[in-house]
Amino acid sequence: MTEDEFIRLISKGAPTGKEVVHGIGDDCAVIDVGLQDKWLLLKTDVIVEQVHFLRDAPPHQIGHKALARALSDIAAMAGVPGQALIMVCIPSIELAGWIKEVYDGIYQCARRFGVSIVGGETSHINGPIVINVCLSGLVEKDRCKTRRGAKPGHGLFLTGELGGSLDGKHLTFTPRIREARWLTEHFPISAMIDLSDGLASDLRRLLSGEGLGAELYKEAIPISLAAKNRFKEGRSKRPPFEAALADGEDYELLFTLPPGYAVQLVDSWKSAFPDVKLSCIGKVIDVPEIRVQSRRTVEVLGMTGFDHLHQAAEKFAQGQNAQQTNAKDDLNPS
Amino acid sequence: MTEDEFIRLISKGAPTGKEVVHGIGDDCAVIDVGLQDKWLLLKTDVIVEQVHFLRDAPPHQIGHKALARALSDIAAMAGVPGQALIMVCIPSIELAGWIKEVYDGIYQCARRFGVSIVGGETSHINGPIVINVCLSGLVEKDRCKTRRGAKPGHGLFLTGELGGSLDGKHLTFTPRIREARWLTEHFPISAMIDLSDGLASDLRRLLSGEGLGAELYKEAIPISLAAKNRFKEGRSKRPPFEAALADGEDYELLFTLPPGYAVQLVDSWKSAFPDVKLSCIGKVIDVPEIRVQSRRTVEVLGMTGFDHLHQAAEKFAQGQNAQQTNAKDDLNPS
Repeated sequence: MTEDEFIRLISKGAPTGKEVVHGIGDDCAVIDVGLQDKWLLLKTDVIVEQVHFLRDAPPHQIGHKALARALSDIAAMAGVPGQALIMVCIPSIELAGWIKEVYDGIYQCARRFGVSIVGGETSHINGPIVINVCLSGLVEKDRCKTRRGAKPGHGLFLTGELGGSLDGKHLTFTPRIREARWLTEHFPISAMIDLSDGLASDLRRLLSGEGLGAELYKEAIPISLAAKNRFKEGRSKRPPFEAALADGEDYELLFTLPPGYAVQLVDSWKSAFPDVKLSCIGKVIDVPEIRVQSRRTVEVLGMTGFDHLHQAAEKFAQGQNAQQTNAKDDLNPS
Repeated sequence: MTEDEFIRLISKGAPTGKEVVHGIGDDCAVIDVGLQDKWLLLKTDVIVEQVHFLRDAPPHQIGHKALARALSDIAAMAGVPGQALIMVCIPSIELAGWIKEVYDGIYQCARRFGVSIVGGETSHINGPIVINVCLSGLVEKDRCKTRRGAKPGHGLFLTGELGGSLDGKHLTFTPRIREARWLTEHFPISAMIDLSDGLASDLRRLLSGEGLGAELYKEAIPISLAAKNRFKEGRSKRPPFEAALADGEDYELLFTLPPGYAVQLVDSWKSAFPDVKLSCIGKVIDVPEIRVQSRRTVEVLGMTGFDHLHQAAEKFAQGQNAQQTNAKDDLNPS
């Protein structure tokens, strides 16, 4: 059973009301609470010790990651983040000082993105540390973006670079809130998603609901230096291009745009965000498959991104080894 | 370090904004999102295997408990529940069938209280099952109740009966949503809280922020049959009165009411809720201590309710024994 199959199973029979604009299946839930021009966004997101972080990672960065992951989902809907509730399960009260540093990391990230911390919950656990963030946001009804809306011929765009996140970015990344707000202010973005499980998986999530596919320009896909180094130095078996497609935890925005705006977008992006790369990586096609086109060949993509629930048991062993040898966090993304 | 001290430590430095009407420290966060006459309520609540439930409990009831605990907090603010997000950490995908039953329990509870399930999150964990619920709600600004507002001389009232929850009520209780809505429609309730950690603890939370205390009428405190039986049959060492004050997981409403309404309240309650007990258990005093008055004596209460973070390690052993002997869930409330 894959993660998506598991989610379909447990989602079956979930009650919903007429106030729900978008429920299960997008980056955030979208709710009409009765505001004239805005919708409420709701998101829950968890990080688990040995799955999403190791205890020897800087606690401040663990806190950053806990909140920034949820912020990345608010960004995917082009929302403005609002309030967060923090839940933490800890095995011992003796971790109080360490946990306080995690919270300080959360609070610093919260201040940076204008998030109010409004409550939470603590519990004992006889096991790994668990940190869950529940985050709300607001978005103008005419600026809310979802995974639906791409059409054949629309361009596929991507912020930042992909792959090799475990070298550090998975703990320190910048959720693309500002970028998403700017994009939806200036361009008729047709669909958007944040990349958490890898381009190959998340691209399918963006297009398959519509029966669509994509043609990717292999040379245009931005591969991070970390992905290249990890392969070159033997820290990962994935060649850089595969890493870019399947490593996951990129927390970049993937979006589609009707034809005719590409030049204008790329130009104005450079002055708005000189430090963040923007790439046009391909286009939407009306066949439900992902074709990777390079200078000489076209291949249909079989590879998927990381399925963290399914592969977790096997990957967990790697996480433990990494911990024992005090290596850099080399564990499951999700 | 007690649970309250730990919460004070981690709450220090939490950023907040002017939209936050009530932040950390009440049953729910209260947010002004720009609606004319209503506030948004937000709550996060977790249950952890071996702390809040054992795996041999009926999965349907575990699901009920997961959502009903958060509903009880919405009730404490007199809110109308809205949407829920469900997060689950599971050690193995082979539990999918079992987890589906947990979700069915959540969904049944959601339908009963008009909650939409709008999303969630799943993760692997190398440890106990964790289920977190994030719940929103709405409440009219002039009906929202908090832990603040009690005054000396106000009567102390309580729904239901207390103690012995581990005999089953902790998995099957009814969150007092309807009761709270009725109360705030008809009476000028001055402060309200839901009883999760035991009357002794939660009464202090309701009054100590105001520098107030309470005089309790010992004979008026409603003790459940379960609390009596557990002591009589040797399943608990706590005498029934102590159990009523300290067992926790009662999920009843405790509220205060200005003088002059008691008779009218008790009368009209009986016709509105013939199956739910309502008790006047004492009154608010302007001295920050809890006095228990019986026919002959007055004693000052030293006992507190359950502090689940502090005592969890020690209590956990009991939970394990209960599991091994397949006894009724006899483990940590919280």
